Amino acid sequence: MHMSFTVAVAGASGYAGGEALRLLLGHPDARIGALTAHGSAGSLLGEHHPHLPALADRVLQPTTAEVLAGHDVVILGLPHGASAAIAAELGDDCLVLDLGADHRLSDSGAWTAFYGGEHAGTWPYGLPELLHAGEASASAQRAALAGARRVAVPGCNVTAVTLGLQPGVAAGVIEPTDLVAVLANGYSGAGKALKPHLLAAKGLGSAQAYGVGGTHRHIPEIEQNLTVAGAASVSISFTPTLVPMSRGILATATARLAPGVDVGSVREAWETAYADEPFVHLLPAGAGGALRWPTTAATSGANTALVQVAVDERAGRVVTVTALDNLVKGTAGGALQCLNLALGLPETAGLTTTGVAP
Amino acid sequence: MHMSFTVAVAGASGYAGGEALRLLLGHPDARIGALTAHGSAGSLLGEHHPHLPALADRVLQPTTAEVLAGHDVVILGLPHGASAAIAAELGDDCLVLDLGADHRLSDSGAWTAFYGGEHAGTWPYGLPELLHAGEASASAQRAALAGARRVAVPGCNVTAVTLGLQPGVAAGVIEPTDLVAVLANGYSGAGKALKPHLLAAKGLGSAQAYGVGGTHRHIPEIEQNLTVAGAASVSISFTPTLVPMSRGILATATARLAPGVDVGSVREAWETAYADEPFVHLLPAGAGGALRWPTTAATSGANTALVQVAVDERAGRVVTVTALDNLVKGTAGGALQCLNLALGLPETAGLTTTGVAP
Amino acid sequence: MHMSFTVAVAGASGYAGGEALRLLLGHPDARIGALTAHGSAGSLLGEHHPHLPALADRVLQPTTAEVLAGHDVVILGLPHGASAAIAAELGDDCLVLDLGADHRLSDSGAWTAFYGGEHAGTWPYGLPELLHAGEASASAQRAALAGARRVAVPGCNVTAVTLGLQPGVAAGVIEPTDLVAVLANGYSGAGKALKPHLLAAKGLGSAQAYGVGGTHRHIPEIEQNLTVAGAASVSISFTPTLVPMSRGILATATARLAPGVDVGSVREAWETAYADEPFVHLLPAGAGGALRWPTTAATSGANTALVQVAVDERAGRVVTVTALDNLVKGTAGGALQCLNLALGLPETAGLTTTGVAP
Amino acid sequence: MHMSFTVAVAGASGYAGGEALRLLLGHPDARIGALTAHGSAGSLLGEHHPHLPALADRVLQPTTAEVLAGHDVVILGLPHGASAAIAAELGDDCLVLDLGADHRLSDSGAWTAFYGGEHAGTWPYGLPELLHAGEASASAQRAALAGARRVAVPGCNVTAVTLGLQPGVAAGVIEPTDLVAVLANGYSGAGKALKPHLLAAKGLGSAQAYGVGGTHRHIPEIEQNLTVAGAASVSISFTPTLVPMSRGILATATARLAPGVDVGSVREAWETAYADEPFVHLLPAGAGGALRWPTTAATSGANTALVQVAVDERAGRVVTVTALDNLVKGTAGGALQCLNLALGLPETAGLTTTGVAP
Repeated sequence: MHMSFTVAVAGASGYAGGEALRLLLGHPDARIGALTAHGSAGSLLGEHHPHLPALADRVLQPTTAEVLAGHDVVILGLPHGASAAIAAELGDDCLVLDLGADHRLSDSGAWTAFYGGEHAGTWPYGLPELLHAGEASASAQRAALAGARRVAVPGCNVTAVTLGLQPGVAAGVIEPTDLVAVLANGYSGAGKALKPHLLAAKGLGSAQAYGVGGTHRHIPEIEQNLTVAGAASVSISFTPTLVPMSRGILATATARLAPGVDVGSVREAWETAYADEPFVHLLPAGAGGALRWPTTAATSGANTALVQVAVDERAGRVVTVTALDNLVKGTAGGALQCLNLALGLPETAGLTTTGVAP
Repeated sequence: MHMSFTVAVAGASGYAGGEALRLLLGHPDARIGALTAHGSAGSLLGEHHPHLPALADRVLQPTTAEVLAGHDVVILGLPHGASAAIAAELGDDCLVLDLGADHRLSDSGAWTAFYGGEHAGTWPYGLPELLHAGEASASAQRAALAGARRVAVPGCNVTAVTLGLQPGVAAGVIEPTDLVAVLANGYSGAGKALKPHLLAAKGLGSAQAYGVGGTHRHIPEIEQNLTVAGAASVSISFTPTLVPMSRGILATATARLAPGVDVGSVREAWETAYADEPFVHLLPAGAGGALRWPTTAATSGANTALVQVAVDERAGRVVTVTALDNLVKGTAGGALQCLNLALGLPETAGLTTTGVAP
Repeated sequence: MHMSFTVAVAGASGYAGGEALRLLLGHPDARIGALTAHGSAGSLLGEHHPHLPALADRVLQPTTAEVLAGHDVVILGLPHGASAAIAAELGDDCLVLDLGADHRLSDSGAWTAFYGGEHAGTWPYGLPELLHAGEASASAQRAALAGARRVAVPGCNVTAVTLGLQPGVAAGVIEPTDLVAVLANGYSGAGKALKPHLLAAKGLGSAQAYGVGGTHRHIPEIEQNLTVAGAASVSISFTPTLVPMSRGILATATARLAPGVDVGSVREAWETAYADEPFVHLLPAGAGGALRWPTTAATSGANTALVQVAVDERAGRVVTVTALDNLVKGTAGGALQCLNLALGLPETAGLTTTGVAP
Repeated sequence: MHMSFTVAVAGASGYAGGEALRLLLGHPDARIGALTAHGSAGSLLGEHHPHLPALADRVLQPTTAEVLAGHDVVILGLPHGASAAIAAELGDDCLVLDLGADHRLSDSGAWTAFYGGEHAGTWPYGLPELLHAGEASASAQRAALAGARRVAVPGCNVTAVTLGLQPGVAAGVIEPTDLVAVLANGYSGAGKALKPHLLAAKGLGSAQAYGVGGTHRHIPEIEQNLTVAGAASVSISFTPTLVPMSRGILATATARLAPGVDVGSVREAWETAYADEPFVHLLPAGAGGALRWPTTAATSGANTALVQVAVDERAGRVVTVTALDNLVKGTAGGALQCLNLALGLPETAGLTTTGVAP
């Protein structure tokens, strides 16, 4: 007997929705059902995603609960604030994966402060590798996702920073109170909105900062994750930058060494945390060539996060560098990983660690 | 019963060899055996191809017939002139796919004129979609590849130009005597050699020509293909250019309309030729959005060639634009397609039409 | 005594207008007056062009004849069709340079066929290097521009193709009846309009065709130029492509050798035409390294066109490759060159042949 | 009377040497003399720098004191360790500007620890904007450079981080003991060496870290500068990353707010420091559009550093973002600024604040 599931994708004309479809086309058990959009309803999917010829002739339907109902799985790639109403109309027999931010935060006050409006509620958080306090490697979060009917998929920047820093937090070898993260981000992370600073003429040959100085919406989500990992309180300076690539995040995240920590034990924390993870790879110590530091190209199209960690004794800081594909491990690949866990399928079904490079 | 095959890759540290491995990792029947290199023998594959974590710890062996022997399939990603000697030592029970140029040309004189030295001989030509004179769609070339033990895989530029123009040649609607092709090429097509004009600082933000003016080695191969497609004689002006992308070819190839041809019949020739091809897609007439003209990103990582054709009545020319991934449909993907045909597997096994975009 | 002139720029928030300002800031005699815009009127120039800090605090005024009047020079960087009405209100004592297409064509029928609507009339054509029939090097066009009060600045693609091919036409060594030109274009050439295919996420890592098949508006302008250069009739297949760079055009333009032409005389035509040109450089024959073929980076920010020519005897075609910066020699630099000629200043004032590379 | 000076450039085939020549071509008083190289001696400059057509035919001479002697100014763009011997043979009547690291550090121990070998000695440090303890704006460093005969030009990364952070150090509003800097760097900063990770195929579409973890040679130079600015002791975590652009540095540098500092006084420190600087521009507070955050493109080809500063009260950190062109303000432009000061010319001679964008 072979189990298969039907899946609808809302927001199919966007980058996140398109990536979910790209991966679902390679999932052995998925049967792709309704595809919906808002402004693009009525057009062909191929007009938006010419890289998906198998679905080129599909007509986009309007995003309504009626259209989405009746599928085993619904993936929501909608603007912030739009998913709660739709999800409420989809029964509990349907697995709903929200690629947006609406249901990620457990603190309603943080939601209101960073996003505004009323909080839609909290769903199981879709980062299977999230360490819980006291864990050497992740199992509690996987347990929370097994059989879940609602999953809040994390943001791509948050995933990169969390994966970079959490082993040190969980092991108590770094201080979570003065973290600094600076990210080099590809343009697909900024979405498909038609804004002047997202034009190719502007982006090519240039690097630009945005959202500097503490108001970025990803901050409470990072704080939440590292608190789950055992931090008593978290403080992070977080700066994303746009660099001329379509995909990828290279996150440099640093923390002060905890007092009295033996430098040798730092690497051990990361090794233990990720030794058995199928999609998070700690690069070897002392390696040469392209194995030494992560590159985003190595993760392009793959569900992989590549992590490296180093101790800067002179500065008294641990420096981590994490590379991942914002649309895969950072969004749609992470969503499929959760889908597999929620449906009881092998966690790696339909996902690859092989990147498309050079 | 499930058939599987063992495969060795020579030149595994290069871009072509690495791409063959990337695709073989996704082939349901492949078991990857020996990986060999020349100057990099002794190093880890991961130092060269960090995007292939599943093979990161494999040690590269020297490229010798002894190391390569004993596999069902051997893929040769070697410099021009190096494959004949190796292949001679591999028995006829072994399928050998040559990604280099040594065995592509049937005309020894053309070999000597364009490459120098003695011609190594001619192998079945690895372009399953190659039309033979009189064919409306390709079957003769597939027949030549079924059960083959030796396959000469075409060059990436040649594949793009041939796929763009051959339907018109075979149908007699274009003249093959004054062809012009200009290509925008990604840098991986120039290989991994350390040359000043291939540095990132030089390539980023710039477009450059090279090999202009008739001496390019791909010319006799294009002429040969279009002759197979039915041209009495072929003449082509061929100019590749390097543009700032790592992968991809966008080939603009034009031909004069044959005298007296009805414009309406032009499109029909391309439609007929590619209607049933799994990997060559003619974009629809009159389409909107991203379906109108090919983009290389839509083929990234996929074995797809996207073709569009238009008639410029004012200039009296047919203009074709073909996009493909030089490392996939242009090299390693085309090789796997031939491997499948030679071994009697489904032609599409391990290959996808889904690209990684944006 | 030092002559200086005041200049107003309409459409100052666009790429063409911004580039005119960039160059005017370096012109020893220019005093920059009113800056106007349409939708952006009321905003600061710095919000649009952060690379021009000297003008960052200038407030954009609405584009009206009242605002533009009273300057010695007015540069119009407006959408097609908008300049005629404005120009009519500016007196003949004012030099008006139109960066748009409205006044380039001498054939009203061609205007209506390619642009639609009524033709606004023909102004002196702003390509000082344009060869007239019988000229070995350009002087007639310079004469037409000396003292002119109205100048129609050519399009960037047209400039590249004209400079590449005209020496052969004027010398009669190539046939003008079956020309083929394919261009690799940077994104600034597509303007600042917010369209999905111009987003960075789409453009990065990809090449795309557009406007294939004979309807491109630049075609009649090329035909006009080569007719001036002596062609009895012109026919050209013209295909621009977008590649991932912000600036630059690399134009590959080919023509059949005229019957009976001695191959040695081909190069001579180009050498003679451009020997004394300050801004058009024929690369040397038989050169090595970066002098062999043009690169767009070598022209970035400069008013230079780099041209190379080769004879492909096998194909019976002359192949030319021309690199230039679409915003400088292709638009605003060419405009300043005309401004200098019209005002009786040294032709090279405020213009450089030095590019910004790598 | 018009003063002019002769200048020789050693290492003229490299990126730094080429950029010095690019700028010298625009300096009103410079007469370019000998151009020298090591491995490329005997070749034409045009083969290396096709963007400098005015010097294309110059033959590169070997780098010896004999060739360099007799010029008013010598600019050394040599590998680390090579300039001391050459400079010793050039008399004190010659102004020598060293673009390399040999004479930047005042602490011989730091030199030996980070570079190895014996320290060549300390020259006046070529950052005119360097604040000295107690200064609200820079004058002491300018005084040190006036009339100097030897100048050690700073590194590009160091310049970016120093300009970002020094106003806060000098004003005492930030703590210099736990600094974190992460930089997005263009490839020209990595030089012209032929290394696999610098190939275009690797760099395009990817971001990569390198030199993470405290051993980077720029660290003691940053510490030295901030100590000059008044820090009792400095500690910095410094991580450069390579992103797909040829030029530019976007440096994100953060520091903890000093205890008890009024947030309003932070911005004041930066405003005061840079109010009168010709080449360092603090972006306005509360600005919109492209004026809000620095972009590297806005500084391309210009001697400008664009700085923005924000207070993240939640994290207790000041975040600064600095954009500059690594080859201009980061290397050759900074050198010309020092040259002007040393020779008593206007500091801005031959330098521009106008960038080449988009």
